[in-house]
Amino acid sequence: MPEVYIHAIEGRTLDQKRALVKDITEAVVRNFDVAADRVLVQIIESSKENKAKGGVLFSDR
Amino acid sequence: MPEVYIHAIEGRTLDQKRALVKDITEAVVRNFDVAADRVLVQIIESSKENKAKGGVLFSDR
Amino acid sequence: MPEVYIHAIEGRTLDQKRALVKDITEAVVRNFDVAADRVLVQIIESSKENKAKGGVLFSDR
Amino acid sequence: MPEVYIHAIEGRTLDQKRALVKDITEAVVRNFDVAADRVLVQIIESSKENKAKGGVLFSDR
Amino acid sequence: MPEVYIHAIEGRTLDQKRALVKDITEAVVRNFDVAADRVLVQIIESSKENKAKGGVLFSDR
Amino acid sequence: MPEVYIHAIEGRTLDQKRALVKDITEAVVRNFDVAADRVLVQIIESSKENKAKGGVLFSDR
Repeated sequence: MPEVYIHAIEGRTLDQKRALVKDITEAVVRNFDVAADRVLVQIIESSKENKAKGGVLFSDR
Repeated sequence: MPEVYIHAIEGRTLDQKRALVKDITEAVVRNFDVAADRVLVQIIESSKENKAKGGVLFSDR
Repeated sequence: MPEVYIHAIEGRTLDQKRALVKDITEAVVRNFDVAADRVLVQIIESSKENKAKGGVLFSDR
Repeated sequence: MPEVYIHAIEGRTLDQKRALVKDITEAVVRNFDVAADRVLVQIIESSKENKAKGGVLFSDR
Repeated sequence: MPEVYIHAIEGRTLDQKRALVKDITEAVVRNFDVAADRVLVQIIESSKENKAKGGVLFSDR
Repeated sequence: MPEVYIHAIEGRTLDQKRALVKDITEAVVRNFDVAADRVLVQIIESSKENKAKGGVLFSDR
């Protein structure tokens, strides 16, 4: 409330994830006027074999 | 039809999952008046490194 | 934590929704061992023109 | 790539949405090292009758 | 099983939607070897005020 | 824009995935009148222990 889902190709470091969820939470708090502990953020990682742009898998690029 | 997606931190046992999907399916059948075999339930698990509350990853708590 | 999303064709009454979210929340609490106020449930309704089974829109059935 | 989905109760102003998507996009660019024009953000709004916490619809609180 | 969700800006005609769900269903049947009536397709439409690319809402472009 | 998410049980080959994302992208381009490189397709795989139909996990069938 709100819940934020980020779909991304796998491979980011723990530090990158830690910083991203912190910044996104702050953006929601600042703009949507909710308390931080009500903001939920989840990163949904995908392998390169499971994601495509322009009809071509990222594993084939 | 309906489709139910449950986002949860990983770590539940097979028995917990088995019981949950059964109970949720029955709840949908009972309240939304559909046949059981039309109800689809999927559990989308997340690692503690990929989910945060209050801007802090569950792996950091 | 967990978050539950139910995709359904629009048209259920408020009473049906009220009962469904209550029953689903109880199912999650009972089986996944979390406090009720940490369970979030959202119904994502779809018009019959936006959903299909077997390649045929529900508005065409 | 990445795609960000924010589930929120309806009722935010256009200005709030405009600021949120800008800030979230910048957070993704800064932390996940992607070009801004590859970041997609979508707000999925829910009525208070379609969302519940603790088993109680927001329209009943 | 499989379930396909298409996130798109609103504004497509019923004919466009009818043709899309038919073609997508055939693609799933052909490539993933499932019966057509097990394929579910849902279009999740978004207003231009709720979707952004590069940090800019489509309603502002 | 559009983004397509396909929820499926795991186990398809890379060739099946490659062909599916190609066909789905072409279906979106043809019917929704967008350029191919704006179409994003992601396959979200599920284990048989995390998906159920009729209240029964696929791993129990």
